[in-house]
Amino acid sequence: MRLSELSERSGVKTATIKYYLREELLPPGRRVTATQAEYDESHLRRLRLVRALIQVGRLPVATVREVLSHVDDASLGRTIRLGAALWSLPHGPDPDEKAPETAVAREAVERLLDRIGWATSQEIGSLSPAHRALVSSVATLIRLGYPCDADYLAEQAGLMRQVAVQDLDMMETYPTEPEQVEIAVASAVLYEPLLMALRRMAQEEESARRYGL
Amino acid sequence: MRLSELSERSGVKTATIKYYLREELLPPGRRVTATQAEYDESHLRRLRLVRALIQVGRLPVATVREVLSHVDDASLGRTIRLGAALWSLPHGPDPDEKAPETAVAREAVERLLDRIGWATSQEIGSLSPAHRALVSSVATLIRLGYPCDADYLAEQAGLMRQVAVQDLDMMETYPTEPEQVEIAVASAVLYEPLLMALRRMAQEEESARRYGL
Repeated sequence: MRLSELSERSGVKTATIKYYLREELLPPGRRVTATQAEYDESHLRRLRLVRALIQVGRLPVATVREVLSHVDDASLGRTIRLGAALWSLPHGPDPDEKAPETAVAREAVERLLDRIGWATSQEIGSLSPAHRALVSSVATLIRLGYPCDADYLAEQAGLMRQVAVQDLDMMETYPTEPEQVEIAVASAVLYEPLLMALRRMAQEEESARRYGL
Repeated sequence: MRLSELSERSGVKTATIKYYLREELLPPGRRVTATQAEYDESHLRRLRLVRALIQVGRLPVATVREVLSHVDDASLGRTIRLGAALWSLPHGPDPDEKAPETAVAREAVERLLDRIGWATSQEIGSLSPAHRALVSSVATLIRLGYPCDADYLAEQAGLMRQVAVQDLDMMETYPTEPEQVEIAVASAVLYEPLLMALRRMAQEEESARRYGL
C-alpha cells in the first residue's frame, strides 16, 4: 500500500508517519519509484505499536527506538528478546542501596522466590528491572511501616503467575514470533492500566459484599 | 509524645511535620502548654499515610487533603468512605466521549459485568473512576487494534477479584475502621507497583518455562 493508504488504515496522519520514518521507528517502505514507496501489513502493525508506546505509554522517542531494536533482533532467543524489549521499558524506581531496609527487602524477595519456586527470577536476580522494582516496593513498605508479610506476597505472586499465563496464552494466538514479541511489549503498556482498573473495581465489589454499600 | 519524638519515630523531619500541620494534612496535637503539644499513635499513622501519598504516590498537597477528608468522614458507610477516599486518588484518563470506540468499549464492559456478576459495579457504573478507567483502557485497545476479547477480560477480572479478596483480608487484620480505610488508601499507592513488578517477573518466569531462556 501507499503512504496515503497506510495513513488511512492506521488513523495516523501522513506527516506523523514521515516523522516516524525519519526517526527510524518505522522501517522504510520498498521503493517503487524515485518518490514513492510501498508499505505492507508489518508497517501497519509497527505503527500500532509505536502509537501505543508514544501516545499511551508516553515514552520518549529514544526509548521507543531502543525497545524496537530488541523487538527486531532475531538473533536472540524468544525469552531474552522479550526480556530485552520489556527491560528497556520504564520500571518503578531502583532500590536505594544506601537505605538499611533495602537489604531486608532483598532477603524477603529471595525467600519469596525460594518458596514459590521461581527459578528463572532467582537466576536472573537483580539484572531484571522487575526484580529491582519489587525489592524497591517492598523496601518502601518496610520503611513506611506497612505490612508485607510472606503469605500475602506469596498469594499475590501466585495470582500474578495466573495473570501471566493468560497473557502468554493471548500472545500465542499470534502466528509469528515477531508479532508475539510486539504484542508482549504493547501489553506492558496497554494492559497494566486495564488490570489496575479491574483491581480497583474488584475492591469496590468485594467491599460492598462484605460491608454493604 | 512531643514533636521531637514524633519526628524520631516517623523518620520525618520536624520542619516537614510542621509544614504538614500548617497544611492540615495532620490534625493538631493536644495542647499541653502555650508552646508544646502532645501527639499520639494516630498522628504517627497519619504521618505514614501522608508520606506514602506524597513521597511515593507523588500526589499534590490539595489532593492529599481531599483524600484525607474522606478518610476522616465517619458519617459515611465503610464502602462509601473507602470509595470516596479511593475515588479522589488519580486514575487513568477518562474515556474520550467523542471517540466512536468509547461506545463499543462501554458495551463490552457492560457485558463483562453482566457475565461475571459484579452487581455493585453495574449499579455504580461510570460514577466510579475505576469503571471509567476500564472503559478508557478497552477503548484504547480497540482504537489501536489490539485484542481484548470477552474471555480474556473475564479471566483477568476473576483473578483481580481474588487479589481484592487478599487485599481486604489484609486490611481486616487492622482492628479499627479508620485504620482499615487508611491502609486501603495506602494500598492503592503502594501495592500497585508491587503487583505490577510481580506480574512482569511472572511473565519472565512463564516465558522461560515455555520457551527456555
